[in-house]
Amino acid sequence: MIVVKTIQEIRAAVAQARAEGQGRIGLVPTMGALHAGHFSLVQAARRECGFVVVSIFVNPTQFGPNEDLSKYPRPVEKDLAGCREHGADAVFLPEVAEMYGQGSPTTVHVARLTERLCGASRPGHFDGVCTVVTKLFHIVGADVAYFGAKDYQQATVIRRMVADLNQPVEVKLCPTLRESDGLAMSSRNVYLTPGERRQATALIESLRLAEKLIRQGERGGAKVIEAVRRHVAQNAPLGAIDYVEIVDPEALSPVETIAAPVVVALAVTFPSARLIDNMRVDVPRRG
Amino acid sequence: MIVVKTIQEIRAAVAQARAEGQGRIGLVPTMGALHAGHFSLVQAARRECGFVVVSIFVNPTQFGPNEDLSKYPRPVEKDLAGCREHGADAVFLPEVAEMYGQGSPTTVHVARLTERLCGASRPGHFDGVCTVVTKLFHIVGADVAYFGAKDYQQATVIRRMVADLNQPVEVKLCPTLRESDGLAMSSRNVYLTPGERRQATALIESLRLAEKLIRQGERGGAKVIEAVRRHVAQNAPLGAIDYVEIVDPEALSPVETIAAPVVVALAVTFPSARLIDNMRVDVPRRG
Repeated sequence: MIVVKTIQEIRAAVAQARAEGQGRIGLVPTMGALHAGHFSLVQAARRECGFVVVSIFVNPTQFGPNEDLSKYPRPVEKDLAGCREHGADAVFLPEVAEMYGQGSPTTVHVARLTERLCGASRPGHFDGVCTVVTKLFHIVGADVAYFGAKDYQQATVIRRMVADLNQPVEVKLCPTLRESDGLAMSSRNVYLTPGERRQATALIESLRLAEKLIRQGERGGAKVIEAVRRHVAQNAPLGAIDYVEIVDPEALSPVETIAAPVVVALAVTFPSARLIDNMRVDVPRRG
Repeated sequence: MIVVKTIQEIRAAVAQARAEGQGRIGLVPTMGALHAGHFSLVQAARRECGFVVVSIFVNPTQFGPNEDLSKYPRPVEKDLAGCREHGADAVFLPEVAEMYGQGSPTTVHVARLTERLCGASRPGHFDGVCTVVTKLFHIVGADVAYFGAKDYQQATVIRRMVADLNQPVEVKLCPTLRESDGLAMSSRNVYLTPGERRQATALIESLRLAEKLIRQGERGGAKVIEAVRRHVAQNAPLGAIDYVEIVDPEALSPVETIAAPVVVALAVTFPSARLIDNMRVDVPRRG
């Protein structure tokens, strides 16, 4: 496994892999602080591609002014060991100046899909994500890119962007990995105090409650949302609900009457970390 | 020369050219109504590339609501004959639905560079240009793309976008071609009435006046602009000046004291057509 810091070097490595006919180029874009969820993406890439690139870049443009950019964990040596163990061929580890130079006025914006859910409380976040992901696609020249379903809105926005801009890359969504008590794995879980960590299971519990209600026949979006909110309020009093929404899996528009598959998504802000989770619930499509 | 209407077909043609080792892929993105200026781009691509693609697409998203989208000339057979004559290998001629499907919420935006000059009077224009050019780059997978210097701001914005997004394409700027009386060639010149056409030479004449003043030692941007404005007002009374600016060739920021190469740019709106032109003026760089 090679570790490179410049655009020129990663391009050369990929060009060599292509020249050697190593097969498809897979990219796993990350911000580091890698956990089993990330490694499941690396493993998927390893199974499906001839050359696997992991990028590790804490992208400043997707953080808001009051967010956790400066304290975001950066355990580089541990990350590199994990990439090696799970079969990456190359890690691209650029500095901010390598990615943005003297300031970079160009952005990629996906309208509508980015207005609700996390987009509502994190203005500019998805512009930052779309722009850096587009840059990484262009730098690496990947054929396939892997994203986790935990960041469901992100994955949906990126799929829309790739389709709209005709980016020649296939986007694969891999399932959320969870701790044994169900908490979705996230690099931000390390911020949680022990008390917050205990209450954080309310997110997945409330999603399972939503799933149960819908499976039992509840079709009113507002009723399901209310039950989720009540569960979180009762079981995670340290957290403040940012949103609970039931949305169309592609348009991310709110669903009032559940008559087709939906995604139930929520964000809860604890004093030490903002957590998100989501669950797709399939129902027989009506009509 | 092949003529194709779908993304799938042009991708297949380019993939075949690559598989056959035909060399670099050149792209000349146009809106059709091709004139000698466009054909000079095709010829440049022909000299420098193994496979030359011309795209002809009147892109609706770069037209404002009160602009000339519906009446923009579309002489397709004549355009195709010209492409054939000047050595294109493929013409990509998509319909609007092929490019934008059911509506496309993704846009590429270049801040700052797009705020002045034509960007000030054509809000959203450069987002439309950047988005469609990015799509064309992704669809064709071009190694080199050719743009005319007549649309100087457009070329500068595209160069910035390509650099910022690490798009793997080389942008080449080719000189403005002119009619025998100096009028910059443009697909919109056909709109001009005979009287407007006679007055339209005021644009290039005023640019030559600016060049002469600067060469003679004038260093005050405002004084040169005033002379240009006066020339246009006196010699093109049918036209209304949209802007006259002296700008830095890369940042497109206004230059008050001319101490390095500048671009003098202007736009004049006649009743039948809005015309633009520009000229780079080199001066010995001071300090």
